[in-house]
Amino acid sequence: MVEHAQKSRLSRRSVLVAPAAVAGGAVLTGVTMAPDSVAAVRQITLYAEPLAGGLFGYGLAPGEATIPGPLLEIYEGDTLEIELVNNTDQRLSIHPHGVDYDVNSDGSPLNASFNAPGETRTYVWRTRKQVDIGNNRFMPGSAGYWHYHDHAMGNDHGTPGIQKGLYGGLIVRRRADLIPDRQFTVVFNEMLINNKKAPDSPMFEARQGERVEFVCIGHGNLPHTFHLHAHRWADTRTGMLTGANDPSPVIDTKNLDPGSSFGFQVLAGDGVGPGVWMYHCHVQMHSDQGMVGLFLVRNPDGSMPAGAQAAIDRFHQHHVAGPQADHSNHHG
Amino acid sequence: MVEHAQKSRLSRRSVLVAPAAVAGGAVLTGVTMAPDSVAAVRQITLYAEPLAGGLFGYGLAPGEATIPGPLLEIYEGDTLEIELVNNTDQRLSIHPHGVDYDVNSDGSPLNASFNAPGETRTYVWRTRKQVDIGNNRFMPGSAGYWHYHDHAMGNDHGTPGIQKGLYGGLIVRRRADLIPDRQFTVVFNEMLINNKKAPDSPMFEARQGERVEFVCIGHGNLPHTFHLHAHRWADTRTGMLTGANDPSPVIDTKNLDPGSSFGFQVLAGDGVGPGVWMYHCHVQMHSDQGMVGLFLVRNPDGSMPAGAQAAIDRFHQHHVAGPQADHSNHHG
Amino acid sequence: MVEHAQKSRLSRRSVLVAPAAVAGGAVLTGVTMAPDSVAAVRQITLYAEPLAGGLFGYGLAPGEATIPGPLLEIYEGDTLEIELVNNTDQRLSIHPHGVDYDVNSDGSPLNASFNAPGETRTYVWRTRKQVDIGNNRFMPGSAGYWHYHDHAMGNDHGTPGIQKGLYGGLIVRRRADLIPDRQFTVVFNEMLINNKKAPDSPMFEARQGERVEFVCIGHGNLPHTFHLHAHRWADTRTGMLTGANDPSPVIDTKNLDPGSSFGFQVLAGDGVGPGVWMYHCHVQMHSDQGMVGLFLVRNPDGSMPAGAQAAIDRFHQHHVAGPQADHSNHHG
Repeated sequence: MVEHAQKSRLSRRSVLVAPAAVAGGAVLTGVTMAPDSVAAVRQITLYAEPLAGGLFGYGLAPGEATIPGPLLEIYEGDTLEIELVNNTDQRLSIHPHGVDYDVNSDGSPLNASFNAPGETRTYVWRTRKQVDIGNNRFMPGSAGYWHYHDHAMGNDHGTPGIQKGLYGGLIVRRRADLIPDRQFTVVFNEMLINNKKAPDSPMFEARQGERVEFVCIGHGNLPHTFHLHAHRWADTRTGMLTGANDPSPVIDTKNLDPGSSFGFQVLAGDGVGPGVWMYHCHVQMHSDQGMVGLFLVRNPDGSMPAGAQAAIDRFHQHHVAGPQADHSNHHG
Repeated sequence: MVEHAQKSRLSRRSVLVAPAAVAGGAVLTGVTMAPDSVAAVRQITLYAEPLAGGLFGYGLAPGEATIPGPLLEIYEGDTLEIELVNNTDQRLSIHPHGVDYDVNSDGSPLNASFNAPGETRTYVWRTRKQVDIGNNRFMPGSAGYWHYHDHAMGNDHGTPGIQKGLYGGLIVRRRADLIPDRQFTVVFNEMLINNKKAPDSPMFEARQGERVEFVCIGHGNLPHTFHLHAHRWADTRTGMLTGANDPSPVIDTKNLDPGSSFGFQVLAGDGVGPGVWMYHCHVQMHSDQGMVGLFLVRNPDGSMPAGAQAAIDRFHQHHVAGPQADHSNHHG
Repeated sequence: MVEHAQKSRLSRRSVLVAPAAVAGGAVLTGVTMAPDSVAAVRQITLYAEPLAGGLFGYGLAPGEATIPGPLLEIYEGDTLEIELVNNTDQRLSIHPHGVDYDVNSDGSPLNASFNAPGETRTYVWRTRKQVDIGNNRFMPGSAGYWHYHDHAMGNDHGTPGIQKGLYGGLIVRRRADLIPDRQFTVVFNEMLINNKKAPDSPMFEARQGERVEFVCIGHGNLPHTFHLHAHRWADTRTGMLTGANDPSPVIDTKNLDPGSSFGFQVLAGDGVGPGVWMYHCHVQMHSDQGMVGLFLVRNPDGSMPAGAQAAIDRFHQHHVAGPQADHSNHHG
């Protein structure tokens, strides 16, 4: 088509991490990224679909919807055109954080920006680099760990859509940013992680020393604090510091309240060794009720560390799935 | 008076933004600021007064109290003397965040620092620049997006006073800081915004490209997250970055929990166009129950963008004012 | 012993602040620190013990347990070996934030890392400096204001142990960091401060101009915001800024939600004078119900400022201890 003449058709693997890694499966899949050196318009089609248990998800192909949806990733300067196919009988939309969009791509009923049941609609997300306005002032660019979610199902804010799984992570990178070996999306949504609770919560896996990226997103009505055992990060755009005198705090626990997001990169098991490390909400009642999952750091050769299987078994024994747990296999 | 010989009597417009703009009215009022190049003592009189519906407010003249109170603004190094006239039958005070005050200006019953009913009392707020103590260490100065509130009505912490509207924004600027075209104070106070809920919540207005400053304040008992559609800011003192390698996160959602405050400057509609953009608490239950308002970005010539009036109409249709809504006109 | 040949036996005063100052007593005790210039292995023994009222604490000697436990302090690069003696009839552990530990020192039942009733077990915490990986990227080091807590009493997360007092502060310093004159640990744990409520909450003391360090820790199930009257700090690793153009916000109120921690240094009464200053949770219901304490800034010569005793008396009159208050003297 003429309008696509100067656009590059998106290879799924070039902007998206393999869904299995995103959802926390045990498969160790490499990430390949081949960013253009100049700004590009990238296009994807997303399918919003019903899932078992009254849930919903976004997916990159019919029948492949997951909770969270695919981790979308673009470079600062790029534009992402999303053709959203609504394969449900509900009004819904996709609303992003962090990027540029006009009112038609707001994803809100306020701006009549949504998909009617069965409707297909295109949303356009633009990004930009920071702008130097002089005197040590830069208007911020789009780079960051962001997210997207429904903003139209059930009411003006998409509350039922979010509750039922219509959300995902969005990364806008600078071109010089480090590319991780693995990526994990962690969504604290009410008392659940990626709409699951222990022992069905995601178990993320990496080999010791791999560069791992966490994208953390909060949703729902409750305040949460994300804690990862045995790893820490700087409270910066990347999780790293930018110099010997960088003033940023280094943390291992951060508020993850509704609508907020952050991300960071760590080296799996660096300085602490392989093993099974908990990540959990540090609100005690929340962790006690199942807002906890496992980060399995394998040996460098991919084998299981001593004691790791025993820890995983204890995790499953201690967390007996209640009636709210969903054992269906719809998200990897 | 002799004691005022070396003090400059404050022109209201020189330290205060026009209340109409503060309260979010539709009038597009210019802001004029003429800071002295040296530290000055500035003086204002504030009137604490009862408002309709059992509410209270601070104002710059009798009968002009608003919720929030006037946005106070001074330069780092200046002193602000506030003569507080208590035109109510309650004990009350004014307690600032961020600035320097001695125990007599603490505004707390603990330090016997309050106005009895009908009493007039002067509170003195000083500010200072950061102090270089060597080895890349600076003790922080006063510059920041702060706030003030009652600390004496009803109990030791002024809880009833805050609940009923006795609060406002306070900016301490560095002399080189950029001056915005418009300023908006957003106070998340329990389930209300500036003690209103949708559709009566403030509609802020600017023209596309204007430099707009938001001052966000949290009060009450509940955690909140402030989200602004289609705009983002750096999590810094000013909302801008200070260099190409500034490590600060760029965000569009930030916790706004009781007693905390932050502010930022954005260019209205920059990169996204004019239109009606929501700002809201991202705690879903809170937005659903009315913690949402509108940021109307007009065309550069001040005219209404296509579709904007329809969006405003939808907003009013969808949010039917309940019995708690206050339709009186006491805050602009 | 041979295995200790190249280890330096820890003098308690060299890594620990005097417990009386930590717990907020009136005794003005100096802090002495004599860090080695090279990384060292330091060793302490901690005793977990029952306290009056069904509480528990950690202490540096039998019968000396306090709530919070001793403020532990090491230098980046050092290792701390903690021999934990469990003098209770409960399973318990010690789990740190911010430092490096292998699965055996995780302190979690998940990793079978805990003390059975009566058992003694050694936990090893390592620390490291930031690592320059090039291109203005540094993997963060361990320096920060951290904390430790039980992770095994009663359930998988140590929720009952934390609730009953098994927690404390942990500082990892860089060797060039400024050493304070006084240190105070403030733990917001449910509706209590250091498991006390007003008027029994800690009263911290310093002389005007002394460099005071606050270590603030959140625990339990509730969101909190820590506010200190008349003092402010930068939202950085140290509470100070690192240059004239440091972008960090300056604040006087910060979220202190479960599992999070921060710290800062201020000069007591600097620019505001001596007197009695409140610190409190700014969630109004929390402060009203007793989450408030006093920071007594004495005159430079140590004498009481005018009006200070009257303020303290008012504080005690206004806060009548309810049945939950604990008047026993078990924590200084």
